[in-house]
Amino acid sequence: MTTNPQAAQVQTIAFVLYPGITALDLVGPLQVLAGLAQASPGFEVAVVAERLGPMPTDTPLAVAADRTFEEAPHPFALVVPGGDAPALRAMGDPRLLDYLRGAAEGAEIVASVCTGSLLLAAAGLLEGRRATTHWTYRHLLGVFGAIPVAARWVEDGPVVTAAGVSAGIDMAFHLAARLAGAPTARLLQYALEYDPQPPQGGLDWDDAPGDVFAPFVDRYVREAWSARPEWIERLDARR
Amino acid sequence: MTTNPQAAQVQTIAFVLYPGITALDLVGPLQVLAGLAQASPGFEVAVVAERLGPMPTDTPLAVAADRTFEEAPHPFALVVPGGDAPALRAMGDPRLLDYLRGAAEGAEIVASVCTGSLLLAAAGLLEGRRATTHWTYRHLLGVFGAIPVAARWVEDGPVVTAAGVSAGIDMAFHLAARLAGAPTARLLQYALEYDPQPPQGGLDWDDAPGDVFAPFVDRYVREAWSARPEWIERLDARR
Repeated sequence: MTTNPQAAQVQTIAFVLYPGITALDLVGPLQVLAGLAQASPGFEVAVVAERLGPMPTDTPLAVAADRTFEEAPHPFALVVPGGDAPALRAMGDPRLLDYLRGAAEGAEIVASVCTGSLLLAAAGLLEGRRATTHWTYRHLLGVFGAIPVAARWVEDGPVVTAAGVSAGIDMAFHLAARLAGAPTARLLQYALEYDPQPPQGGLDWDDAPGDVFAPFVDRYVREAWSARPEWIERLDARR
Repeated sequence: MTTNPQAAQVQTIAFVLYPGITALDLVGPLQVLAGLAQASPGFEVAVVAERLGPMPTDTPLAVAADRTFEEAPHPFALVVPGGDAPALRAMGDPRLLDYLRGAAEGAEIVASVCTGSLLLAAAGLLEGRRATTHWTYRHLLGVFGAIPVAARWVEDGPVVTAAGVSAGIDMAFHLAARLAGAPTARLLQYALEYDPQPPQGGLDWDDAPGDVFAPFVDRYVREAWSARPEWIERLDARR
């Protein structure tokens, strides 16, 4: 509790951390919105997790949150990163899903990156909503009543979902413009020198190597969802 | 020491961590090259620091290395992230500079992101070399005998320097293609769905807000280099 009226007005953008996340899913948008918080004192960013202390990512880097779920129960905005198998397993973590449901209730923005949208889906937050995720996982969204969309990011009411991994950066600049205005977002873009020049150019979706990734995705899903046969059934029924 | 000839052939790409780094400087290229290591068993990635245990970044996220400097003295490749004031202060950290010099000696690739190139410069590794850094810090490179270049990334012999923050991702895809070939790099690009769509488009360098950033950069430099008056003198002499 605080009696400082200014502090009480700070709006928290909470990034959700759980073991095994794809590091860039978290750090891309975190870097953008940490810049927003620096430029706009009305906002702050936090990284929230079930516990403090280092957690593994899908790289050798371990990362640690600065707040527990209990310390950030009602954020202004929620951002949920994804991952491969660990994100699919996290869909069965009741404490994580409970936090997402409670935090989403009063949040003005409920966002995800990559397969983070599958966690929102498992928490029941995407029913009837247009949403996206990593392109190799997009067929899973329908299992939870979401309407899959192939787009860099999708905004449906308070829910903003980004495509795979690096798409979180684009989504975060969109959110920065929405929250603080286009000029501030542009300044942040110069600060992060976000002027992408992929050495081989952009992606060609007609040439996407879906066959290379599909067997991995299918195995991750069946292993991670082994305790949820109804999800597997619904998935197979949709084929 | 190992007697397993296969293990002995694994080439380590070492990301250097120190307190206060810009998180995305590290995590952008780390994510790309961790994917490379997954796709190409001849490579591994490591995050090296003076000590293990969480270190602060310029966001609320703390990050931890998985190896000490002593555990990775001779990496195949070195990648040095940057930061604002903390990177400038790290230019005076003798243990970090000693590690960079020793590790760079036998490395095939000595890379940096953003102001990470200033650490290479302070270690004496950029003399006479073409290099880049974050656009707001580019004028500092000449203080250390480097030739500043305005480019997304610059390759000069073993030294590959990237521009600010997000440029590390582009540089890493370039390195992935150089190390494992263009088809593998392209597969990684699909895996990270790296198909950037900045909501406000690319940057316009004729419109860059240098005046907004210059006072901060100047203050950071003068504070961080207060124990190195010869650097300040050389900087002022170049104006």
